[in-house]
Amino acid sequence: MTNVAIVYYSGYGHTAKQAEAVGEGVARASGAKATLYAIDKEGNLPASAMESISQADAVIYGSPTYMGGPAWQFKKFADASSKPWFTQAWKDKVAGGFTNSASVNGDKFATIEYFWTLSQQHGQIWVGTGLLPANAKANGPDDVNWSAGFGGALAISPSDAAPDEAPRKGDLETARLLGQRVAETAAKFAA
Amino acid sequence: MTNVAIVYYSGYGHTAKQAEAVGEGVARASGAKATLYAIDKEGNLPASAMESISQADAVIYGSPTYMGGPAWQFKKFADASSKPWFTQAWKDKVAGGFTNSASVNGDKFATIEYFWTLSQQHGQIWVGTGLLPANAKANGPDDVNWSAGFGGALAISPSDAAPDEAPRKGDLETARLLGQRVAETAAKFAA
Amino acid sequence: MTNVAIVYYSGYGHTAKQAEAVGEGVARASGAKATLYAIDKEGNLPASAMESISQADAVIYGSPTYMGGPAWQFKKFADASSKPWFTQAWKDKVAGGFTNSASVNGDKFATIEYFWTLSQQHGQIWVGTGLLPANAKANGPDDVNWSAGFGGALAISPSDAAPDEAPRKGDLETARLLGQRVAETAAKFAA
Amino acid sequence: MTNVAIVYYSGYGHTAKQAEAVGEGVARASGAKATLYAIDKEGNLPASAMESISQADAVIYGSPTYMGGPAWQFKKFADASSKPWFTQAWKDKVAGGFTNSASVNGDKFATIEYFWTLSQQHGQIWVGTGLLPANAKANGPDDVNWSAGFGGALAISPSDAAPDEAPRKGDLETARLLGQRVAETAAKFAA
Repeated sequence: MTNVAIVYYSGYGHTAKQAEAVGEGVARASGAKATLYAIDKEGNLPASAMESISQADAVIYGSPTYMGGPAWQFKKFADASSKPWFTQAWKDKVAGGFTNSASVNGDKFATIEYFWTLSQQHGQIWVGTGLLPANAKANGPDDVNWSAGFGGALAISPSDAAPDEAPRKGDLETARLLGQRVAETAAKFAA
Repeated sequence: MTNVAIVYYSGYGHTAKQAEAVGEGVARASGAKATLYAIDKEGNLPASAMESISQADAVIYGSPTYMGGPAWQFKKFADASSKPWFTQAWKDKVAGGFTNSASVNGDKFATIEYFWTLSQQHGQIWVGTGLLPANAKANGPDDVNWSAGFGGALAISPSDAAPDEAPRKGDLETARLLGQRVAETAAKFAA
Repeated sequence: MTNVAIVYYSGYGHTAKQAEAVGEGVARASGAKATLYAIDKEGNLPASAMESISQADAVIYGSPTYMGGPAWQFKKFADASSKPWFTQAWKDKVAGGFTNSASVNGDKFATIEYFWTLSQQHGQIWVGTGLLPANAKANGPDDVNWSAGFGGALAISPSDAAPDEAPRKGDLETARLLGQRVAETAAKFAA
Repeated sequence: MTNVAIVYYSGYGHTAKQAEAVGEGVARASGAKATLYAIDKEGNLPASAMESISQADAVIYGSPTYMGGPAWQFKKFADASSKPWFTQAWKDKVAGGFTNSASVNGDKFATIEYFWTLSQQHGQIWVGTGLLPANAKANGPDDVNWSAGFGGALAISPSDAAPDEAPRKGDLETARLLGQRVAETAAKFAA
């Protein structure tokens, strides 16, 4: 069994929807199981979560992009991970990331870049989407990787779209494909 | 008179169109003049260009995003700028940047980040778009900053769009507004 | 009078010392005054601080680099700045940044990159150190910009050095020079 | 047999020395073999190199940091890799990176960030140093990861140090450990 921890913060529900899609993608991989860890409004996780994450084969980081980076609640989790960092307890886990924001581009790359930077401090092995972009004139939000993320899965939720409207079809499938890819990579690596 | 140098590379003509729009924006600023320096296919500029750029009040960097960064031809220019770097000849110039690629996101932020990094090696003063994003459901490529760049002006030219089709209306106006903002900032600074 | 706001978080006192040096540098600039805003352990500032910062001519961001980015307490401040962001109340202010960590390199560039990204969301004008590096064999921690930051001022405080030992001489003078440069740039810009 | 391609550019010989150390580290891994591909002054590789790299199990990118990023010669190689990119021929290879510059920090993180960005466009699996930093007062250039790179191996070659003087002992061993780690990761992954 491949255990994948999905650790994320969601402010209004859009990123939570993206996190669930990542989890669905993990479940597509043979013998893989996703556990979602939702960071709360104060930037905290249940007391046992850090230890559970330490047992996982892979960890996927998620947050909306706020003011050009991950939400502070996510960063509070990242700073708290300095405890496993000291003993390199999360070393060699496969890692990936996803982010959502209202804008088409909107500095989302900076958030993915941060997730990668965090993973490298932990000595983790980074896996991105592995997807070519859908970038012809006829493409749109229904298409896989129209948002065009490589280092991680991106989603666009327009500022006036409720979580039942966005992320849209293409971004949700992109999230699923990321979850599946991280799980399959972790399985190969653990074999 | 405020002199603004626009140094750019264009592979297929889309970024050239964006560069021209930046130049039009410079011309909107009172007493400002743009000079365009097109880097050639071998990464070279006319012999006198480096000296002319050294005389400008501001410099704006432009390149398509290829393989997650500026085109090598632009980087060849950047590496050649180590000569004015040694004497800090470009110090205190106002600087800005723009990039174009086929994808919606497509790591364009990385190219703008690089332009900023280059500017900081030169001791320059960085100015971005200063524009809020157009990120509601009704927004699209006709809107200013739908592409949602802050550190620099972004443009999306779908992979099957010719340079007379893209960058589109909103991205071109965003480019103009960047040019105008850089010129006006340089004018204030020179006053 | 040029008013420079220095907004920073310090975990153990080293970054506070760096912030004070930045403030000393501001005071070197003719007619300039620094106000230091220390973010507390919960990521909060006094209620009036956001409004005071809105009145400043320039703002300088500071934080230790923890787990590859600014401390979560700083990010909480950055996220709270979405309020002035909506009205672009901090637009056109001159901005700069500084960071400290125990390691020689240690991803400090990522923190400066974040400060710049934040500034660009706010439509600010970024100013770096404008200093060449001290990078010959004979150079060391007593030299200005031995730490070699361009986009912002860097400091190295070894893991077993108390705040009265580090940041060291060169990094503190680099911090002063950044403060002075930001203040002088803001003065020129306001003139 | 695990085949590791080391593709690098070196301007003055320091990065070549670092590349050789990476290769020595690869050879430490059981059943692993390194092939070095030196990009020439015009940014070219022998005609067969791209095809040979496509056969490797892992690829490690190396370049000095010039003007805040990889040398243009490396970027020319990266842009030429758009050919295997179109068919995702380098997908799922393990990837890593290293860089050298004269300064202590000197924006080297930006170069490693670029290598990672490139790897993600190719759908590769990124492996960093997995090393804690040597950051106490007593540490210096003889120590492994004193330069404190996580995403990739960093080296400092002072501006007046010849290639037989620098990179120094600690940076060379860090390079070896990166090579070994990439090779061992690729071997696990291929198993």
